[in-house]
Amino acid sequence: MAIKLVTTAAELRSEGARLLKEKGGSSLGFVPTMGALHSGHATLARTAVAANDVTAVSIFVNPLQFGDAVDLDRYPRTLEADMELLDAEGVDLVFAPAVEEVYPDGQPLVRVTSGPLGEKWEGASRPGHFDGALTVVAKLLHYALPAGPAADGGAAAYRAYFGQKDAQQLALVRRMVTDLNFPVEIVAVPTVRAEDGLALSSRNRFLSAEEREAALVLARALRLLEQRASAHEPLDLPSAVELVRSQPLVELDYFDVVDPRTLEPLAENCQDTPFRGEGLAIIAAKVGPVRLIDNIPLDS
Amino acid sequence: MAIKLVTTAAELRSEGARLLKEKGGSSLGFVPTMGALHSGHATLARTAVAANDVTAVSIFVNPLQFGDAVDLDRYPRTLEADMELLDAEGVDLVFAPAVEEVYPDGQPLVRVTSGPLGEKWEGASRPGHFDGALTVVAKLLHYALPAGPAADGGAAAYRAYFGQKDAQQLALVRRMVTDLNFPVEIVAVPTVRAEDGLALSSRNRFLSAEEREAALVLARALRLLEQRASAHEPLDLPSAVELVRSQPLVELDYFDVVDPRTLEPLAENCQDTPFRGEGLAIIAAKVGPVRLIDNIPLDS
Repeated sequence: MAIKLVTTAAELRSEGARLLKEKGGSSLGFVPTMGALHSGHATLARTAVAANDVTAVSIFVNPLQFGDAVDLDRYPRTLEADMELLDAEGVDLVFAPAVEEVYPDGQPLVRVTSGPLGEKWEGASRPGHFDGALTVVAKLLHYALPAGPAADGGAAAYRAYFGQKDAQQLALVRRMVTDLNFPVEIVAVPTVRAEDGLALSSRNRFLSAEEREAALVLARALRLLEQRASAHEPLDLPSAVELVRSQPLVELDYFDVVDPRTLEPLAENCQDTPFRGEGLAIIAAKVGPVRLIDNIPLDS
Repeated sequence: MAIKLVTTAAELRSEGARLLKEKGGSSLGFVPTMGALHSGHATLARTAVAANDVTAVSIFVNPLQFGDAVDLDRYPRTLEADMELLDAEGVDLVFAPAVEEVYPDGQPLVRVTSGPLGEKWEGASRPGHFDGALTVVAKLLHYALPAGPAADGGAAAYRAYFGQKDAQQLALVRRMVTDLNFPVEIVAVPTVRAEDGLALSSRNRFLSAEEREAALVLARALRLLEQRASAHEPLDLPSAVELVRSQPLVELDYFDVVDPRTLEPLAENCQDTPFRGEGLAIIAAKVGPVRLIDNIPLDS
């Protein structure tokens, strides 16, 4: 494998600078992940590799964003397979630090807090989750910041890639970067779906065949809204909700159409009048033992 | 004046890079201030200028860290005098943004939160103060980050300077930089005192002659502890507290000896046994209309 594995922030920094120099490059792409990589991550990596001279991927299961120690423990760790997948996509550098490297002093005292945007939707059922996620993203964005100059002597471009699948995380990372002026460009990468339509997720492996079949109703309901938006029809969200509720194995948590940036419901666009503008249909449900989320951008 | 004034983050970034290149420099020093500059700030600037090829100073009265709108309004603004003082110290660049430049979307949703370290001492009487201060320091540290490479083609060194006078702010900034891995070195600069011993502060101008005379007891009490520490004597904090309380114009808020990093009281070191180790004596009091803080490092 051509890909290189580093485990300390210092190595990431020096290897990133060395690779930029060696390749005569002027841009660094960074993809933070929690490992257990699937084709969705491969697409993230491919997008970063295509647009940047050097691409680094981090693999770190961040304890800070798990409320539940059991959930943290059973989160899949598959480093070897992850490395192979990333190598095949042309990623240069993998940063897979131990928990002690990222949190040498135990839990951080000073943190990033996600505010009201982090308390709704996913945040409502996972208190503190987005504070933990943003805190580690802040750290990772600093770790991966290009330390060396571009080959042309200017500043190296710095881009970080996040999946549209985690829409609330994406909105919050964008907001963090704006609110705290991180020197990085955030790039959103569309959700990758299995052939049957299910959005790829590391958690899908915990679904039985029957549960997986049932879970397809999430994507089906989202697509229904997308079709209505494209056709300039009223979204009729209640009928889409009804479709999901008709599936007995699916326990719906939320399903709404929101502003993609503020995640505030766009109620007035959803009922009787044709949908106009930009929206995001978001859904979360428990299917068997697994909590699934999905979303689809609406543009009309 | 040779010094240059910029008001946007984009100008700060490009001018910083241009100056590094023009001077063939390899380091950038940054001093964040709220203006109303006095000799204490001049020392900060001088320290930065001596150690770096390019020095930038920001002047921004951050609304986010003022709980009280009246206090915010009456905070002195003296840009012209500030520019002259900084020019005399050899500062290259002043960044004096409008509130709308720093907070274009109004109040930031995603913020830095200071945690327990920000809730004690000054934080106890100024709720939210350190969250607001750290949030703007995070922004400013990103704004001033050297965008261009060093003249030697490597990464430019980046150092930010904070006064020891605001000991809790200093401890929190250090902790933020560690906990969130900001790519900057934090340098502490010793407190500057007037000839009579009073620690310099922009707020001293609001003291009457009589109040100023009374305020000297703060520095006197701190020096008493410093002398005892140097002499390896017990600190006998109660007697120092008594000294302050004997001054009727001074309303003591707190006076303690703490760990300089955690700001936790070092009670066991303060009473009967000789002082050993590293500590920080911190004091806060209201003198007339003005809240004053001061501190002195103890090393024995």
